[in-house]
Amino acid sequence: MPVFKLTIEYDGTTFSGWQEQPGQRTIQGVLKKALTTILRHPVMLQGASRTDAGVHAIGQTASFHTNIDVEPQRLVKGLSALCRPGVAVVNAEIVHDEFNARFAAQGKHYKYQILNRSAASPLIGSVSWHVPRLLDLKLMQEAANLMVGTHDFNGFRAADCGRENTVRTLTHVGVERTDKDVIVITVKGTAFLKYMVRIISGTLVEIGLKKLPVDTPEKVFASKDRSLAGQTAPARGLTLIKVYYK
Amino acid sequence: MPVFKLTIEYDGTTFSGWQEQPGQRTIQGVLKKALTTILRHPVMLQGASRTDAGVHAIGQTASFHTNIDVEPQRLVKGLSALCRPGVAVVNAEIVHDEFNARFAAQGKHYKYQILNRSAASPLIGSVSWHVPRLLDLKLMQEAANLMVGTHDFNGFRAADCGRENTVRTLTHVGVERTDKDVIVITVKGTAFLKYMVRIISGTLVEIGLKKLPVDTPEKVFASKDRSLAGQTAPARGLTLIKVYYK
Repeated sequence: MPVFKLTIEYDGTTFSGWQEQPGQRTIQGVLKKALTTILRHPVMLQGASRTDAGVHAIGQTASFHTNIDVEPQRLVKGLSALCRPGVAVVNAEIVHDEFNARFAAQGKHYKYQILNRSAASPLIGSVSWHVPRLLDLKLMQEAANLMVGTHDFNGFRAADCGRENTVRTLTHVGVERTDKDVIVITVKGTAFLKYMVRIISGTLVEIGLKKLPVDTPEKVFASKDRSLAGQTAPARGLTLIKVYYK
Repeated sequence: MPVFKLTIEYDGTTFSGWQEQPGQRTIQGVLKKALTTILRHPVMLQGASRTDAGVHAIGQTASFHTNIDVEPQRLVKGLSALCRPGVAVVNAEIVHDEFNARFAAQGKHYKYQILNRSAASPLIGSVSWHVPRLLDLKLMQEAANLMVGTHDFNGFRAADCGRENTVRTLTHVGVERTDKDVIVITVKGTAFLKYMVRIISGTLVEIGLKKLPVDTPEKVFASKDRSLAGQTAPARGLTLIKVYYK
């Protein structure tokens, strides 16, 4: 049975996250409903990343099976029309029969955006964390470098994250000033735990504010203690940029 | 009497432009009301650019006089609190007594953003023009180069623009792909006519779609004929980035 791969952009602000939940408006829920309307059969939709409530995406991916003969380009237009304005399907393509957007994913790229000035932003307020006090970029970069590699991220995950294995590999953690008042944290890795990118970002911000020492990552890796890391940064600053496949 | 210079960011979506008008919600109107609340006297607020309804800014500037002794940083916080969420005062400073944000301006930098793909964008939809058909970037760049310099921009202005002198100087017109599906037109110049940047952008887009020939700028400069130029691009794609002073 043919498998479709979708690439999806969304403004997570008004959604209860990716994952379908009864009585909640979720991105998976909105997409499944639209797919069922177009294809006229129930659809199993597998997303690559179960983004939290309030988190955005420009490159989320998802896959589903269907026997209905439908042009990918028609699917892009039909789904976007049914899911607007919060969700858009940017691309649709037919992939090989064994493809699964979640299990075939080789890695993910996330961006965490920080507005670092006194005044809030009317233009990027909904996609950034407003940190009024000046951040020390160099300290954040130094700490970011300590996070790259394979570590036990037990101290960098949500209390209710149910994973047994908490060892993960980050291939890149970057901190740069992309605009006068905007700092972007880029995190790339093979797989992630619940809230991992947000706790990494919250920890880097507390290091940038000199509330935590620059060697905090090493301490958290060694102790596996969540209480030594920083706060969970707000969801609004996080965007899933890309999911990598072979 | 001390003069203050404000730097202002706004999401123009829900505003009837910069200029105060009776019965309309305007950026100047919102700021003047907030200033009057803080300073307790009526204020003459002079903006550098009278941006159209729906146009955004990250670096609009404005000036006003007051005898009230107020800390610039307190003004930033107070004004932003009173004007949120659509308008924020990013910076306030005391400048020399003769300063006027409009007449002292040496030049302005505008950005026009285009989303060039089938699907609309949930994340940048409110700050871009959605052009679904593929644009030819090279043709747009070639035409942009023809616009740089001093020309008679009579054919690139609104029918109701009342200026006598229509000769203006553009120091830079750039067209670049800043993201896979995003094209940004950058326009810098000493002064502008009504709708000038939007008609320049609309013309470049029609050249990119091959609806207009690449030498259209030369034809419009020579003929001064508005009907030979392209459409006025939608306000939502335009952002005033910066106003230059000596």
